[in-house]
Amino acid sequence: MENALSDLQQKLFGEVADLHGTPSGAYNLRADGKVLSRSSTANIDIKTNSQNNGIEIHIKDNTKNESVHIPVILTQTGHMEVVHNDFYIGENCDVLIVAGCGIDNCGDQKTEHDGIHTFHVGKNSKVRYVEKHFGSGEGTGEKILNPVTEVFQDENSVMEMEMVQIRGVDSTYRRTIANLKANAKFVVKERLLTHDRQKALSVYKISLDGDGSSADVVSRSIAKDYSYQKLDACISGNARCNGHTECDSIIMDHGTILAVPSLEANHVDAALIHEAAIGKIAGEQLIKLMTLGLDEHEAEDQIISGFLG
Amino acid sequence: MENALSDLQQKLFGEVADLHGTPSGAYNLRADGKVLSRSSTANIDIKTNSQNNGIEIHIKDNTKNESVHIPVILTQTGHMEVVHNDFYIGENCDVLIVAGCGIDNCGDQKTEHDGIHTFHVGKNSKVRYVEKHFGSGEGTGEKILNPVTEVFQDENSVMEMEMVQIRGVDSTYRRTIANLKANAKFVVKERLLTHDRQKALSVYKISLDGDGSSADVVSRSIAKDYSYQKLDACISGNARCNGHTECDSIIMDHGTILAVPSLEANHVDAALIHEAAIGKIAGEQLIKLMTLGLDEHEAEDQIISGFLG
Repeated sequence: MENALSDLQQKLFGEVADLHGTPSGAYNLRADGKVLSRSSTANIDIKTNSQNNGIEIHIKDNTKNESVHIPVILTQTGHMEVVHNDFYIGENCDVLIVAGCGIDNCGDQKTEHDGIHTFHVGKNSKVRYVEKHFGSGEGTGEKILNPVTEVFQDENSVMEMEMVQIRGVDSTYRRTIANLKANAKFVVKERLLTHDRQKALSVYKISLDGDGSSADVVSRSIAKDYSYQKLDACISGNARCNGHTECDSIIMDHGTILAVPSLEANHVDAALIHEAAIGKIAGEQLIKLMTLGLDEHEAEDQIISGFLG
Repeated sequence: MENALSDLQQKLFGEVADLHGTPSGAYNLRADGKVLSRSSTANIDIKTNSQNNGIEIHIKDNTKNESVHIPVILTQTGHMEVVHNDFYIGENCDVLIVAGCGIDNCGDQKTEHDGIHTFHVGKNSKVRYVEKHFGSGEGTGEKILNPVTEVFQDENSVMEMEMVQIRGVDSTYRRTIANLKANAKFVVKERLLTHDRQKALSVYKISLDGDGSSADVVSRSIAKDYSYQKLDACISGNARCNGHTECDSIIMDHGTILAVPSLEANHVDAALIHEAAIGKIAGEQLIKLMTLGLDEHEAEDQIISGFLG
């Protein structure tokens, strides 16, 4: 990590990308609208895109066991940005991509980062993608994150996404679109926590276009205080395919949740399943932990971290 | 049953209301826009409504083990009607209501029946409601049924609905709305079969407004040939309540199905669950029945009738 980083910046990079120093492999660290540092490797090339509003990441065929870190942090109140990052992943790769955004807003103006990502995943390639979102700061200005993630999967590719909103994000509109060719596999693990008067919308549109393609989307969320969530996962089965989505949500306090999943079977060999459940933490679970010596608040925290883990 | 009934009319009443003679209890038989016969009882009064576009059915408090039959048939091509039927069910009742509509269209014009029903279910009352829809006839004119069913349930009441579309309905838009007070219970068993180029939309909007209210909606459907179905069941939990919806669908041939359930948790003590599954008949099931001597078509029919049974 550059010496120029403030304690706050270091803390944010730690939260969103588990970075506590310069990452190994390729990376692009962005803070308050500027590139802090960037590094390409022999197989992974990162460059500013031609529109100068983001980066292109090109990963060569057969790149294995390498990683790319592209975290973003914002610490200036009132900063708003739309950033376009495009990943071109060759064939037969196996790579880890770590993104994420942390906002610390100590002022009274809205701070917003809209990250528009595309992933072109080549044949037989496997990508693991980790994205964490986090907000902090004592200011009254809103912290807003609106990610758009569009995935194009070539034959026999695997995309595994872990998408986490830890806490502190006032408003988010998350859109994830995936298009799968034959035998491609798309797996999502989403974790969402909202509190206070936060709003979170999470929308998925997954098109299983190739024979043998599959999707498995598991979303777990917790709405505390007066927060609101809308979860909308749509799978279209347009070929011989398997799709599964699951939304499990816990409501607490005055939280409200709307789950609107949808299944679209357009092919006789499409097999699609959806499950959703919304409820509060079971009283017995709380009591059990409280008999072990935790107070009610600690017991709840324990259950929440288990549920989101 | 009146002597004036034709064989075709008798057949239709049999299909939609299992009637093979004059029903016992109260009834109102309607054919081609006219009342064929009507009978009230000491406890159940049926009268034409003040707008003269349907009937009002008043059921006295404490009416038990009685039934009302109000089937409708249409045999004239080009006949289109909107009929309003309002049920006022007193307290502490236990009644069976049989509705249903059969259309036989031998001509080339559209025949349509839109039945708008409201049910006001009094405290501690139990209603079992059975509605069958059926179409037949060699004509090219469409057979259309657009039922709207709105249920208002007072405290501690039970509404059990069995809604079946047997076959032959070219287009249907089914809307079912339920509003539940404390400890009321709403149960639906829906069975839907579409074939050829038929379209079926089925929408539920259930509001669990009272503490202890519950809903259980189970929809099973089959889309054959080039038919299309959209199933949209929404449960809003606005109190301490339990809601469950389940959509299980089989697609065959070039059938397509869109399932868009939704759960809306607006109260911390709302517990809501949804399940949906779409797929084709499992090959193993077919093979098993075929080894027992059935041909493929017979085996499919066997599985379908078991699934919809």
